[in-house]
Amino acid sequence: MVISNKKSSKGELARERILAQALALADAAGLDALTIGSLADAVGKSKSGVFAHFGAREDLLLAVLDEATQRFGNQVFVPAMKLKRGLPRLRAILTNAVRFYRDIPHGCLILSAAHEFDDQPGPIRDAVIHYLRRLQAELLRAVNHAQDAGELRDGVDSELLAFECFGVFLAAHHSLKALRDPHGITMAERAITGLLDRAARVA
Amino acid sequence: MVISNKKSSKGELARERILAQALALADAAGLDALTIGSLADAVGKSKSGVFAHFGAREDLLLAVLDEATQRFGNQVFVPAMKLKRGLPRLRAILTNAVRFYRDIPHGCLILSAAHEFDDQPGPIRDAVIHYLRRLQAELLRAVNHAQDAGELRDGVDSELLAFECFGVFLAAHHSLKALRDPHGITMAERAITGLLDRAARVA
Repeated sequence: MVISNKKSSKGELARERILAQALALADAAGLDALTIGSLADAVGKSKSGVFAHFGAREDLLLAVLDEATQRFGNQVFVPAMKLKRGLPRLRAILTNAVRFYRDIPHGCLILSAAHEFDDQPGPIRDAVIHYLRRLQAELLRAVNHAQDAGELRDGVDSELLAFECFGVFLAAHHSLKALRDPHGITMAERAITGLLDRAARVA
Repeated sequence: MVISNKKSSKGELARERILAQALALADAAGLDALTIGSLADAVGKSKSGVFAHFGAREDLLLAVLDEATQRFGNQVFVPAMKLKRGLPRLRAILTNAVRFYRDIPHGCLILSAAHEFDDQPGPIRDAVIHYLRRLQAELLRAVNHAQDAGELRDGVDSELLAFECFGVFLAAHHSLKALRDPHGITMAERAITGLLDRAARVA
């Protein structure tokens, strides 16, 4: 969830361009459908040309997952970090995530990969679980900031509130993507408002 | 979401046995991995023997989805229907669903199929959406019963509460299945208690 600022050599630029294409392919057809061959066709290179940048297919998939996580971080967490710690930042994280889900055509790659690789133990599934746990940890951290700042009512269970925030993420993603329900965005935004208003200390 | 009570002929019994095996295969490897051929191998019949019961693969998949929905209904809604309309029934639906997700080894077939067939327009995706919308409608109906019985606080938005209930379903399923987090059951049950306690009219 960090913006990459590394200086790019020509080779790194080529790798970034191929990786962007790999992410687009995975977005469209699922991570499990992505192969060195399909990516080589899409970028007009030989398989060995793609292999030279990423190594084996598993390494390519791990790189795509990392790229998808950075995209989510850049659109959801980075703008929220500019806001004050506590409820303003937590509200921004939730609202940005719902809008990210609304705007991404094929749904969240990490959430889809959680289903696709659910029964395929190995490095890909481990990486998906790692990213999802990190997301949950970031949500809990944002809730804890609000609690530390005295913005939450006495007795609010921060772990439970973070779990409920994650439930809003999932319900929003599900409504918008699986059900193609345009009303999902309104429901999700009302759910965020309700959740945070109920948790907030009344002035 | 109705228990099947039809009288079974020999042919119907054979079909039910094959369908149970088809559901088990789809549970284990995903609906999209199920074919007439893999099912024929699993039940020790010829492809044409399986075809005779279900017709083409698409009809088989639709029958499996229907069977999965009936299983969910039998374990989640049927026991809840024995309880009083309103909060007792709503609480039972939510609790039963979370326990269903806990006990089913590979996760909910309908939720997985929602991801698998997300980008494959056609009768399977239509059926998945139909079942998920019916689930949401049942949740809303249970919430409305509680509201009609005067059990909810003034100003509770029943549509929003049903959306939040669905969020608890998804968060529970996600924690238990994608993240293999055994703590997910506790979190989900606390989320249900919190959600309904906040919505309930204080006596």
